[in-house]
Amino acid sequence: MSSRVDAEAVRRYLEQYQDSAVAAFEELERQARFRQDPWQQDDSSFGCTCVLEGGDVLEKAGVNFSRVVGPALPPAATERHPELAGQPFTATGVSIVAHPRNPYVPAAHCNVRFFSARTAEEERWWFGGGFDLTPYYGFDEDARAWHARARAACAPFGADAYPRFKQWCDEYFYLPHRGETRGIGGLFFDDLNAWGFSRTFAFMQEVAVAFLEAYLPIVQRRGNTPYGDRERAFQKYRRGRYAEFNLLYDRGTLFGLQNSRRAESILMSLPPDCGWTYDYRPEPGSAEAALAERFLGSRDWS
Amino acid sequence: MSSRVDAEAVRRYLEQYQDSAVAAFEELERQARFRQDPWQQDDSSFGCTCVLEGGDVLEKAGVNFSRVVGPALPPAATERHPELAGQPFTATGVSIVAHPRNPYVPAAHCNVRFFSARTAEEERWWFGGGFDLTPYYGFDEDARAWHARARAACAPFGADAYPRFKQWCDEYFYLPHRGETRGIGGLFFDDLNAWGFSRTFAFMQEVAVAFLEAYLPIVQRRGNTPYGDRERAFQKYRRGRYAEFNLLYDRGTLFGLQNSRRAESILMSLPPDCGWTYDYRPEPGSAEAALAERFLGSRDWS
Repeated sequence: MSSRVDAEAVRRYLEQYQDSAVAAFEELERQARFRQDPWQQDDSSFGCTCVLEGGDVLEKAGVNFSRVVGPALPPAATERHPELAGQPFTATGVSIVAHPRNPYVPAAHCNVRFFSARTAEEERWWFGGGFDLTPYYGFDEDARAWHARARAACAPFGADAYPRFKQWCDEYFYLPHRGETRGIGGLFFDDLNAWGFSRTFAFMQEVAVAFLEAYLPIVQRRGNTPYGDRERAFQKYRRGRYAEFNLLYDRGTLFGLQNSRRAESILMSLPPDCGWTYDYRPEPGSAEAALAERFLGSRDWS
Repeated sequence: MSSRVDAEAVRRYLEQYQDSAVAAFEELERQARFRQDPWQQDDSSFGCTCVLEGGDVLEKAGVNFSRVVGPALPPAATERHPELAGQPFTATGVSIVAHPRNPYVPAAHCNVRFFSARTAEEERWWFGGGFDLTPYYGFDEDARAWHARARAACAPFGADAYPRFKQWCDEYFYLPHRGETRGIGGLFFDDLNAWGFSRTFAFMQEVAVAFLEAYLPIVQRRGNTPYGDRERAFQKYRRGRYAEFNLLYDRGTLFGLQNSRRAESILMSLPPDCGWTYDYRPEPGSAEAALAERFLGSRDWS
């Protein structure tokens, strides 16, 4: 617990991580490039929203860096330390969302963040983050590879790290009104400081790197799968669930909308195209039916 | 205040109102008809979800009747009587949402509802409801006619009724993260019982009738306006705001999702087609720019 807290090192890492994620996504594209939209709200709050739209591979992707200094931490921002609610805080993070064009390529999300907050007595800090994968057509091979990379990222941090953060992810990315998970999960952690600063920072970096290393091969593997109107219609329908989760439940989205005037940066996560059809039910035995039956739920993918 | 409460009369009225709204919407269509989906959750909770999809005029419309008996009233269901939170309740209502195909025809929403709840000492009841109009292309003529009909519905109930419920509507259908109203408003009221049962019930009926009488002429007036890809794209973009409001803020939606297993009935309000584009800004001077500049905000339409 005694390693020195270095918030500037976290900020530098996250800015570099944003650059490397932008570069990695641009390598998937022939022509499309990210629009880079830096912003500064005041002396202490700033960021850069990077959004790519209309790519051949990525219909829409966002890679956002932000550092927000706020006067009062909302209760939603820390589950385990309610005593910090209302205290001044600094939050630095990168959020990534990818909505690929091909319905056989899953959508993906990653967030890594560092918080610090001051009570009358002391300065407190913690890391949070994780990643999850949202397929529209499920493949066991992808789900196993995704979770294998998640498990490998956790391995140096103890045998209980992967099962704990995997379960937390299944519980977090859950739509109670649908009785289903957003996708096949991955990792989720929050309020993490028990390992001391250096080790927890190292874990956050592992998670960040693992996301790109787990996701890019899946994009490449599925990116040339032929598809037609049927698959696009199902993708559009399922993207409605993505919008439901983010607007109804996602703490990052709700926290962001309450603590920033940058609604566009926060809502970059929402899909380029979605729609709601009353009481749609996929044909029994179809690939569309298999998604809910076999992939949306808490499953052991080892 | 002494008129006898007759919950069954309200239920009968609302079931008939659902039938008349379904019939009025079907008259707009050449072929499309509502799918009628009756449901019964247990002995005391039942309803009928009526949804029309793929019409020539109405791309999607829902007219839902429901009567829900619940063990514990959520705090969100009553603003002014926090002492009723957690008490057993009955809620009977009709919700109507129309998403027309032609972008020049505004979307519209109406809700009328009757609540009763029991404290240890007494039975309490109140009415709530209202309607609002969400144009994608604004027309002064429509906005004035809409509000004139709203004002006429309120007139028999006192000079302060229209300004009070009009302002409440502007405040309720507001997206704080966007700094804009959902549309041009209309009427919104809740916790209404001060006029006694008979008179308040009569007001709810006036509101229900006024909605159809205000909306149908606008559909007819704008329904044949030529449009192309540009208008459909703007409609799709703006429908994203509709989804944002309903999923982030609408008390009816959030209350429904927490108190029912019928997510599909509640989310019938969501648009058939929408999408999010980062930091879209309409061309200055365009009809699309005029929407936010002249129509989305609290304005006097008399």
